[in-house]
Amino acid sequence: MKAEIISIGDELLIGQVINTNASWIAEQLNLSGISVYQIVTISDERVHILKTLKEAGDRSDIILITGGLGPTKDDITKETLCEYFETKLSFNEEVFKNIQLLFEKRGYKISELNRKQAEVPEGCIPLPNIHGTAPGMWFEKKNTIYVSMPGVPFEMKALLSDFVIPGLLSRFKTGAIVHKTILTHGLPESLLAKKIEHWEDNLPKHLKLAYLPKPGAVRLRLTGKGNDKSALENEIEEEIRKLQLIIPTEIFGFDNDSLSQKVGQLLREKGMTISTAESCTGGFIAHLITSVAGSSDYFKGSIIAYANEIKEQSLGVKTQTLIDHGAVSEETVLEMVTGIKSRFKTDCAIATSGIAGPGGGTDEKPVGTTWIAISTPFKTFAKVYEFGDNRERNITKAAMTALNLIRKELSS
Amino acid sequence: MKAEIISIGDELLIGQVINTNASWIAEQLNLSGISVYQIVTISDERVHILKTLKEAGDRSDIILITGGLGPTKDDITKETLCEYFETKLSFNEEVFKNIQLLFEKRGYKISELNRKQAEVPEGCIPLPNIHGTAPGMWFEKKNTIYVSMPGVPFEMKALLSDFVIPGLLSRFKTGAIVHKTILTHGLPESLLAKKIEHWEDNLPKHLKLAYLPKPGAVRLRLTGKGNDKSALENEIEEEIRKLQLIIPTEIFGFDNDSLSQKVGQLLREKGMTISTAESCTGGFIAHLITSVAGSSDYFKGSIIAYANEIKEQSLGVKTQTLIDHGAVSEETVLEMVTGIKSRFKTDCAIATSGIAGPGGGTDEKPVGTTWIAISTPFKTFAKVYEFGDNRERNITKAAMTALNLIRKELSS
Repeated sequence: MKAEIISIGDELLIGQVINTNASWIAEQLNLSGISVYQIVTISDERVHILKTLKEAGDRSDIILITGGLGPTKDDITKETLCEYFETKLSFNEEVFKNIQLLFEKRGYKISELNRKQAEVPEGCIPLPNIHGTAPGMWFEKKNTIYVSMPGVPFEMKALLSDFVIPGLLSRFKTGAIVHKTILTHGLPESLLAKKIEHWEDNLPKHLKLAYLPKPGAVRLRLTGKGNDKSALENEIEEEIRKLQLIIPTEIFGFDNDSLSQKVGQLLREKGMTISTAESCTGGFIAHLITSVAGSSDYFKGSIIAYANEIKEQSLGVKTQTLIDHGAVSEETVLEMVTGIKSRFKTDCAIATSGIAGPGGGTDEKPVGTTWIAISTPFKTFAKVYEFGDNRERNITKAAMTALNLIRKELSS
Repeated sequence: MKAEIISIGDELLIGQVINTNASWIAEQLNLSGISVYQIVTISDERVHILKTLKEAGDRSDIILITGGLGPTKDDITKETLCEYFETKLSFNEEVFKNIQLLFEKRGYKISELNRKQAEVPEGCIPLPNIHGTAPGMWFEKKNTIYVSMPGVPFEMKALLSDFVIPGLLSRFKTGAIVHKTILTHGLPESLLAKKIEHWEDNLPKHLKLAYLPKPGAVRLRLTGKGNDKSALENEIEEEIRKLQLIIPTEIFGFDNDSLSQKVGQLLREKGMTISTAESCTGGFIAHLITSVAGSSDYFKGSIIAYANEIKEQSLGVKTQTLIDHGAVSEETVLEMVTGIKSRFKTDCAIATSGIAGPGGGTDEKPVGTTWIAISTPFKTFAKVYEFGDNRERNITKAAMTALNLIRKELSS
């Protein structure tokens, strides 16, 4: 069984709107055991729509279409579907009642344009749109199912969850499909691949591995397909246990976990608090920590010490240290971390000092040079990194690396 | 002239990754006067890639491909391109030098896998990837140009901007196209549209307006198409002058300007410095300010005071103020802003205190309630906002609103 997604809309082709609908639909289908063969984004243009429907119909069993159902002139999906299915529009009392209800709730008056939205192609099954005026439309032709949905995300989402997925599941017997994403930090993709090569080569044939790198992390996704869902889940768990023996410190979580959430969880478990003293990361570590709901339970605060005088005055870094070693040095970052920890009376602390760029680099300390210090009740240390020459990525990498260092300390 | 985008990657088809690359490429092509016919997202699967290349080649002049160029086994784009163009891989010294340089800078050892990344199909022109190991590859076949790029966004973006777009523009004659994006803050889309309705209705026919909302800002893009570039530019400038009379305080910049950059520019012009005292924004304002290169010239630092004891101890907020009015109050946020300004000896300061959510709301102060205080050498004041119930959006909106408040003070 193959599904295909067709996204209709000029706004997608000029890059004005990011196609989040297609990703969301793809995710929902996969979670239901339905594979997506491809996603096509096309313009609001009759010939293009007809051609795409024909091609999709020739190869796929399920075709989900979004967009082009609005009340304005540039929306031509409904008329084009009539042409494709060789049928005509006809007024539907049920659909009209839904529109009336919606307008009453919002206190608007129904216009002639809205009345036209109650017309649907004869032969299709209209699906109720509880959030908007354009109904979903379910068609069948030569054993292929076509569903047309509005492009407004929250309207489409309700339609898909409430009617389309249940409808598809009652029609098709789907196999079991299990995904698990393993989150790692600390090794670039190529070195990680080398290290887990043997494990990867010995994976059972029906488990597939994918690498998904992003700044400061490499995600590994294991996908298993088969008939028995719980057997697949067990197999994946078993493979993850093997992997944990190979890269025990690199794995920081699974699926939608984040480093800051993981650090928060460890702090909470141990009843510890944290603070940060940030120079080059400029508050980004504090931002990541406080992006997690409930972080006020363990995060007390930070001092962002961009100017040297703030490092001295608010963190207690010695003037002589700054003169002798500079702001970007092991000595300074260690004084920063002990300074924030004692002033904010926290159990743990993170400090950063580096040259984010693009200016400020020297031969000895090029742009990207970053000192990170970590302090826990048991240990205080600093490490130096060279991240590269892109300011934005340097800030991200320094923050992620710092969070991973404290995570490793708290996990050990 | 027609362009087409092919995105390769299983992660896109299972909905794990949103296809932001395709939108960005589509936007860049459109800005250069090249229309995008369609976007196809397919799996890392040989037959599927070959079929898609063939179909795209039959109808389009320019085919831009991303993804599947990593060093690992699931990446098969390069081998498949060889098959499609009937050629073979061959080691490229230039590409290898780039990889070596990159690894030296990062202090990693080159593995056999990386050496393999220096192999490119014979007959293609490799395009330097300054941020990664996989080069871009420019092919031509029957008057159609194919360019394969890595899927890592910042690698792809540099390649596209530095080599692909200039290469395409030197080959194809595109008409004059001028875009100008006007950045506004302070009015939601519908109210803004109402306010500028008359101006919009009277735009010359060949100037098109698009609304691009995002959290904390509405962008208006004017696009002019024609033959005479400088005439178009003049017309657009003229329309913007008219618009500035209608919404003088809402417009904060143009094109790639950001609020934090604009604030930085104003501070620099006036020779002033700034600091922040953040509670609910948790360092996000400091992060936005320090994301701008050179911000150390005017940004001294911040205190992130998440815990009340930090508000008292490090910012001088009175215990009685916290008892009488609570942390989320006009009194507290005003003490925070004067506290940071005097302690960090800056000319200006920003302070925030709010309930980001999802917990912590009360009937009197629901989730989203946010106090923002601004201080300049001339004025100190606080305002309260109710942003909503989404934590991430509350943090973003509070930070953007705070930056816009100080921008307006510094501009007046």
